[in-house]
Amino acid sequence: MDDRLKKQLDFALEIDKEKNVFRQTHLSGHGRNENDAEHAWHMSVMAYLLREYANEPVDIAKVMLMCLLHDVVEIDAGDTYAYDEEAKKTQSEREKRAKERIFSMLPEDQRDEFMVLFEEFEACESPEARFAKAMDNLQPLILNNSNGGSDWQEHGIKAAQVHKRQDKTKLGSETLYKVTEDIIQKNVEKGSLLP
Amino acid sequence: MDDRLKKQLDFALEIDKEKNVFRQTHLSGHGRNENDAEHAWHMSVMAYLLREYANEPVDIAKVMLMCLLHDVVEIDAGDTYAYDEEAKKTQSEREKRAKERIFSMLPEDQRDEFMVLFEEFEACESPEARFAKAMDNLQPLILNNSNGGSDWQEHGIKAAQVHKRQDKTKLGSETLYKVTEDIIQKNVEKGSLLP
Repeated sequence: MDDRLKKQLDFALEIDKEKNVFRQTHLSGHGRNENDAEHAWHMSVMAYLLREYANEPVDIAKVMLMCLLHDVVEIDAGDTYAYDEEAKKTQSEREKRAKERIFSMLPEDQRDEFMVLFEEFEACESPEARFAKAMDNLQPLILNNSNGGSDWQEHGIKAAQVHKRQDKTKLGSETLYKVTEDIIQKNVEKGSLLP
Repeated sequence: MDDRLKKQLDFALEIDKEKNVFRQTHLSGHGRNENDAEHAWHMSVMAYLLREYANEPVDIAKVMLMCLLHDVVEIDAGDTYAYDEEAKKTQSEREKRAKERIFSMLPEDQRDEFMVLFEEFEACESPEARFAKAMDNLQPLILNNSNGGSDWQEHGIKAAQVHKRQDKTKLGSETLYKVTEDIIQKNVEKGSLLP
């Protein structure tokens, strides 16, 4: 086997570890915590399914790939809960080191390609990144909503915190932003989200 | 919310159940059993990563989508182990019923699109389906190999059974077929796969 293929297969095996990175979100039916690989799969399917609601035309293959790869860095950096302000202070530095180590396992051309893609997602400045970010927000929201908002309840989250996070959904899709606003409103009304 | 979007979101929530369908393959590092959603995520990333080895030019977005969706039917039909000959007798009928129920949750155009895509994957007669099938075979193989072939050992699998399954890998990628042949050979030599 040549060196290029060996590097690619080593990377393919390395990212298996993403299945052991667990998030705060629970599966529907009051299931267990979700892991990063499942979350990425779900986001990617939803991106394709809901692409007609993107604010701008998107290269859907690029959006799907962004969704699939955006959490690879968490193999080293761990999951940072969206409402954990302390952990978020060190998130960027942790993820930068992780990005270097993990993507450097690849042949140079693919290392560069995946790094650029990851950075584009993080910067949220292209149509594809904006729509992928909308999926990153919407996917856990529909799971949490299906469980009566229990993830918010568990952490005592306030509506304003969710609104702040969902601002990025609006950049990706006005239509899906309305869905999230409606979900937030209903969860405030029934008391699972603090006003 | 209009009826179309409601149907799409209901489908998005329904497929969450794929995370509860567990396979015979174990995660690397002698981890727990893998589930269908993780498997689909891993295959889809590998398809993009290794697309240069496809025997024929492929529409990679279509391959990725096939990988992401190919096991949705197992929400109802359950996972059928590749070497369980009894279960394989009823697999097609079980998956047909599942396909009808699950994809019919979608708006008609998307129901038809996803059904055709699923059937194309199953038939394995297009370049995209052949490469997606190669990923479906290669992904569990590299996990199992990383664990010293313990999944084969547990079930007393013979090399001939693995060869038979991997014939489809050859149709998708001659290069990756060589990788699988090499893995099979090494596992026979060390006794984790029966000759």
